[in-house]
Amino acid sequence: MIAIDFSFRDWQWQYQISTTFFICVIVPTVYYIHAKYITKYPNNYNRLEEPIKLVVPIPQEAKPHWKGKRLHPPNLSIRIPNEPTKIQSYCPATGQLLGVFSVTSKEEMNQQIINGKRAQLQWKNSSFILRRKVLKTLSRYIIENQEDIARIACRDSGKTKLDASMGEIMVTLEKLNWIISHGERSLRPSQRPGPSNLLIGLMKNGEVRYEPLGVVAALVSWNYPFHNLLGPIIASIFTGNAIIVKCSEQVIWSSKWFVDLIRLVLKSLDIDEDLVQLCCCFPEDADYFTSHPGLSHITFIGSKPVAHKVVESAAKELTPCVVELGGKDSVIVLDDVKNFEALSSVILRGTFQSAGQNCIGIERVICLPKAYEKLVDIFTERLSDFRIGSDIDQLDEIDMGAMISDNRFQNFEELIEDAVSKGAKLIHGGKPYQHPNYPQGHYFEPTLLINVEPHMRIFQEEVFGPILTMIKATDIESAINLSNSTEYGLGNSVFGSNFTQLNNIANQLESGNVAINDFATFYVAQLPFGGIKKSGYGKFGGEEGLTGLCVAKSIVMDKPLLRWLGIATAIPPAIDYPIKDDKKAWRFVRSLNIAGYDNRVWEIIKAFEKLAKS
Amino acid sequence: MIAIDFSFRDWQWQYQISTTFFICVIVPTVYYIHAKYITKYPNNYNRLEEPIKLVVPIPQEAKPHWKGKRLHPPNLSIRIPNEPTKIQSYCPATGQLLGVFSVTSKEEMNQQIINGKRAQLQWKNSSFILRRKVLKTLSRYIIENQEDIARIACRDSGKTKLDASMGEIMVTLEKLNWIISHGERSLRPSQRPGPSNLLIGLMKNGEVRYEPLGVVAALVSWNYPFHNLLGPIIASIFTGNAIIVKCSEQVIWSSKWFVDLIRLVLKSLDIDEDLVQLCCCFPEDADYFTSHPGLSHITFIGSKPVAHKVVESAAKELTPCVVELGGKDSVIVLDDVKNFEALSSVILRGTFQSAGQNCIGIERVICLPKAYEKLVDIFTERLSDFRIGSDIDQLDEIDMGAMISDNRFQNFEELIEDAVSKGAKLIHGGKPYQHPNYPQGHYFEPTLLINVEPHMRIFQEEVFGPILTMIKATDIESAINLSNSTEYGLGNSVFGSNFTQLNNIANQLESGNVAINDFATFYVAQLPFGGIKKSGYGKFGGEEGLTGLCVAKSIVMDKPLLRWLGIATAIPPAIDYPIKDDKKAWRFVRSLNIAGYDNRVWEIIKAFEKLAKS
Repeated sequence: MIAIDFSFRDWQWQYQISTTFFICVIVPTVYYIHAKYITKYPNNYNRLEEPIKLVVPIPQEAKPHWKGKRLHPPNLSIRIPNEPTKIQSYCPATGQLLGVFSVTSKEEMNQQIINGKRAQLQWKNSSFILRRKVLKTLSRYIIENQEDIARIACRDSGKTKLDASMGEIMVTLEKLNWIISHGERSLRPSQRPGPSNLLIGLMKNGEVRYEPLGVVAALVSWNYPFHNLLGPIIASIFTGNAIIVKCSEQVIWSSKWFVDLIRLVLKSLDIDEDLVQLCCCFPEDADYFTSHPGLSHITFIGSKPVAHKVVESAAKELTPCVVELGGKDSVIVLDDVKNFEALSSVILRGTFQSAGQNCIGIERVICLPKAYEKLVDIFTERLSDFRIGSDIDQLDEIDMGAMISDNRFQNFEELIEDAVSKGAKLIHGGKPYQHPNYPQGHYFEPTLLINVEPHMRIFQEEVFGPILTMIKATDIESAINLSNSTEYGLGNSVFGSNFTQLNNIANQLESGNVAINDFATFYVAQLPFGGIKKSGYGKFGGEEGLTGLCVAKSIVMDKPLLRWLGIATAIPPAIDYPIKDDKKAWRFVRSLNIAGYDNRVWEIIKAFEKLAKS
Repeated sequence: MIAIDFSFRDWQWQYQISTTFFICVIVPTVYYIHAKYITKYPNNYNRLEEPIKLVVPIPQEAKPHWKGKRLHPPNLSIRIPNEPTKIQSYCPATGQLLGVFSVTSKEEMNQQIINGKRAQLQWKNSSFILRRKVLKTLSRYIIENQEDIARIACRDSGKTKLDASMGEIMVTLEKLNWIISHGERSLRPSQRPGPSNLLIGLMKNGEVRYEPLGVVAALVSWNYPFHNLLGPIIASIFTGNAIIVKCSEQVIWSSKWFVDLIRLVLKSLDIDEDLVQLCCCFPEDADYFTSHPGLSHITFIGSKPVAHKVVESAAKELTPCVVELGGKDSVIVLDDVKNFEALSSVILRGTFQSAGQNCIGIERVICLPKAYEKLVDIFTERLSDFRIGSDIDQLDEIDMGAMISDNRFQNFEELIEDAVSKGAKLIHGGKPYQHPNYPQGHYFEPTLLINVEPHMRIFQEEVFGPILTMIKATDIESAINLSNSTEYGLGNSVFGSNFTQLNNIANQLESGNVAINDFATFYVAQLPFGGIKKSGYGKFGGEEGLTGLCVAKSIVMDKPLLRWLGIATAIPPAIDYPIKDDKKAWRFVRSLNIAGYDNRVWEIIKAFEKLAKS
C-alpha cells in the first residue's frame, strides 16, 4: 500500500492505493504521457539509436574497500618536489595515493589539436541519429554503473557517495537526456522575420543555421570531477565539434578514467576517439593552451583570479570564451514560509552538498525577522548532529565528506574570525577537523555563523566551503538589497507562500539564475546557465549551451516565389555606376527610404509616385 | 503608365498598368498586407507611440555650400602638435577645418558612468510603448531630414551622398523599424521545455527573461559615422540600458552632433538625456574606459590590432565583449550566372561603396573560368569611367568619394606592388590621386587587379580600400577553398543560377554571414550579424543583438497546478540530514536516476517499485 498525504490550504486528504495499481497503471500512464507530450522524444523508439552495451574494466584503486598506501605530510600534495612535470593524485578523504601522472607538454598539446581537427572533419557531418546513439550509450552505461562512477568521483574528490549520486550522476544523466530529447530541435535552422522594409521584406528570406565550430576547449574545475568534465564533452560531441578538456590537476586520476570511458564509447561506435582528448598541466603553464590558435572556443569553469588570466590569454588569438565562475548565492526566506523544517532541509543540502564546494552552493541565508528566528533555532539544533568523514566504502554513517585540499582552511578561519570580531556569532564548527580514522583527510567542521552583516568579509567573499551564514533583513526591500550587494551574480533562491511576491523579487535579483521555492533547479532544468557581474558571462546548458558551441551563420536568400520566377535582385539604373545624375540618384534613394520606412500612407504613396517617375 | 517586363526562363511577358491604379490600389494593398501579416507591427496604430516633431538647428559647417578654411600639410591631421588633449576635425574630401574638440578626461568618464547609472535606473522600468516612441521619433526625424544627416556624415568622412543614403540612412532606418516591429517580441520571456526527468519535469516550469544590463559601452569605427554610432545606441535604448559611446577620433565632429540629436529626442520626451553619452579619446588612452568597472558590456566595432587591446583590457573587469572586426569577404561567381552585366553592378557597388571602407565590403571576387573572363572584360571597361571627388554639395557628377585619411595609401601601394611582382596584373588605378579642386583631399584611384592568387599579401590582408581583386578558381571546390583560406570569416556572397548548388556552397563557407545571389543583405535584413575566426565574435543586429544586451535570467518555478494545490518541492526523508542509512540513501537516488532516465519501461517500473518501498 502507498499512502499519499495531500494538503491544500487548511484541508487534508489521505489516499491509499495498492502498490500493484501504482506500478501497473499509474507509472506507465505517467511515463507514456510524459514521453509523448512533455519531453517529445523525437526518436525514442528509433532502433538505429539503440545504445550499445559496454564493458569497461575499472582500476584497482576504484574497487570497493581498496587498501591504498597513505601519503603523509609533507608528501600529502599533488606536487612532487623536484618533479615539476609530475602530478600526484591522492584521495582527499583518506590521503591514499591514487597515482602519478605526467603533465601534457606543449608538443603533446599541438598534436592533440591536430588529432582533434582530423576527427572533427569527419564528425561534423555525422547525423543526429548517430550523435544521439553516442549519448544514449553513455547514458545507459552511467545508469547501469552508478556505483563505480560514484566511487571513482569520490576517491578523487573526497565527497560522499550520496553527494555524488545527485551532484555528479543525476545532473549528468539529465544533461544527456535533455539533449537526446531537445538537442536536434535546438540546432535546427531558425527562421527570421527578415527586413521590415516594405520592398526588401517582400523579396528576402533570412535564417540562422548552426554549424560546428571545430576544435573547442573546456577548462574545468575539480569540484564535480565527473559532471564538470562531462558537461562540455556531451555538448561538444552533440554539436559536431572536437573537444580538448583541460582537467584540474587536483583530479587528474578520475578525469583520465572518465575521458577514457568516453573514448571507449566513441571507439565502440567506430568514431575517431580523438574527438575527445584530455590535457592537464599546472595553472602556471596553461597559457600555451588557452592562447593556442587551433582552438575556436573556450569554456572556463573555475575561479575569478584564474578567469582573468584565461580571458587575457585567449585575447591573443581572439578566441571567444564562456566564463563560469563562483558566486555568493543567497537564499531569501520570507516570513510566510509554510514549513520551516522542510525548508531547513533544502538549505542544509544546498549549503553542505560536496562540503560546500559547489559554484551554486548557498553562501548566504537572508531571512526576514520571523523566519530568521525560526531557522536559527532549527539550524542550531540540526547542525549539532552533523557527522563528517569518508563514506566511499560506506563503512560509517556520515553527512559530509572531505574537501579537495586544506589550502583554504586558514582563509576560512580568517573569514570567521573577521566576522566574529565585527559582531557575528559562531554557533557551530569554525575549524579544521582531524578525523580519528583518516588523519590525513582534509576535513573542516560544518559551521554555523549567525548575525552576519554586509561589512564582514564573509558576506562579500566567496567561501566555497561548509559554512552556513545567517543574515537578518528588516523587510523584503532590504532582503533584495542585501542579496544584490556583492560583486557576484550567479544564482539565488527565494522562498515564501505568495507566488506573485516571489516572482516580483526574482525579477529584482541581480543574478543569471533564480529558483522560486527551490534550490538550484534552474541548473537541473537545463535552462541556459551562467552568471552576471563578477560571476562571469556566457551560458552553457540548454539551447544556448548548444548553439553557443556553433557558428550561427546568418543566411539571406530570395523568397522561393521569386527564385521560381527567376527574378533576381539588381542595382536600380539610377544608382548604378557610372552615376548619371547625382541629384536624381539621391532623390531615388531618399524616396526609397520614405517608401520603405515612413508609416504615413500618404507619404508612402507620394514616394512611390516619385519612384515610378524616376 | 508603368511597364513591367517579366521573364521566366525562356518566356517573356510584358504588363502595362496605369500609374493611378498602381498608386491607388497596388501600393496600399501591398502595404496593408505587409504591415498586417509580414512585419506584424504590434502597435502600428497606437496613438501613444505617435512620433513627435523635432526642430534641430544644424551647425554652419553642415550647411550646403559651406566655405570653410582648408588645412594644409603638415597641419592636415587630427592631431595638433603640443596639444595632446585636442582633436582637430576636418573634411577628408576637401581638407576644410570642421572644429577642434577636447578629449574626454578620466574624471569626465567617471562622471559619465555615474550619470548613465542614474538615467538607467529610471529607464530600465520604461514601457515598450515609450521605447518605441523614442525610436519612431528618431525614425521620423531621419526620414524628414535625410539631406542634413547625409551632408553631416559626408563632411566628416568624405564619402558621397549616395553612399550615405544607403550605407548610413537606409540601414539605420531599417534597424529602427525592425526593432519597432520585432523588438518587443524578441525580448519577451522565452518558455523552455524544462527538465527531461520524468518526475522533475512534471513539477517544474522554466523560462528565460531578458532584463537590462545597466550601463553598456560601444567603441565604434569611423567608416559609417552615423550608422555605426546609432546602431548600438538604438539597441541599448530599446533594451533599457544606458550607453556611453566612444566614437572614433576621426569623426568626433559629426558624432557629437548625432549624439546631441539623440539626446534632444530623449529630452523632448522627458527622458533623462544621460541615457546616451559620448566620449572620445586617442586610442592610446582608451584603456581606462575599456577596463572601467562601471561598464556591463562592450561592443567593439573596429580593427583586429585594436580588438586585442580592448579584449585584454576588458578582462581586467571580466566585462563581456562583442567584437566586430574586418574581413576578407569574397564573392563567389559561378559560370551559370544569367546576367553578368547586372552582377558587375552589384560587385562594383559592394567594392567601391564608401571607397571600400566597409567591413563587409567585397575584398575578393572569386570566379569560375568563364565568369572570370566575362567579368574581367566588363570591369576593365566600366572602371575606366570611374570619377572621384567630392559630391557633398553636388557640384560634380562623381562615383566615389574620399578616404578618411591618407595614412594607409603606402600600404595599398605595397600590397599592389607585392601582387604585381608575384604575377598579378594591374589594369586600373593603383596610386593616390590628387584632385585638381581638392588637393588636400584623401583620394585613392579605383583599382582593378586581376590574376590575384593566395600567395600574394593582398589575397590575405584586409585592404579596406577601393581595390577590386579578381581571382580565378578552377571549379566550385577550389572556389570554396579559396574563399575559406584567409584568417577572416565575416561575410561572403555566392552567385549562380542553381539555388540548391548555391545553398550547398553557402553551407561550406567559413563565415558568420552569407548572401545568396545578393550582396550583404544579411546585414540589412537584421539577421544576427557577426564574424568568426579573426573577424571577431558575438552578434549584433536582430534578436541576438537585443537579447545580447540583456541579462538572460533563467527562472525555474513550480507548475501552476502544483502552486495552486500548495504542493512544494521537499527533500525526501531518505536523503535528508542526518542521513539515517547511507546505503538506503544511495539506493534511493540510484533508483530515482533509473526512474528518471532509463528508457526501458521495465527498468523504470522496477525502479518505481524500489522507490515505493523506501
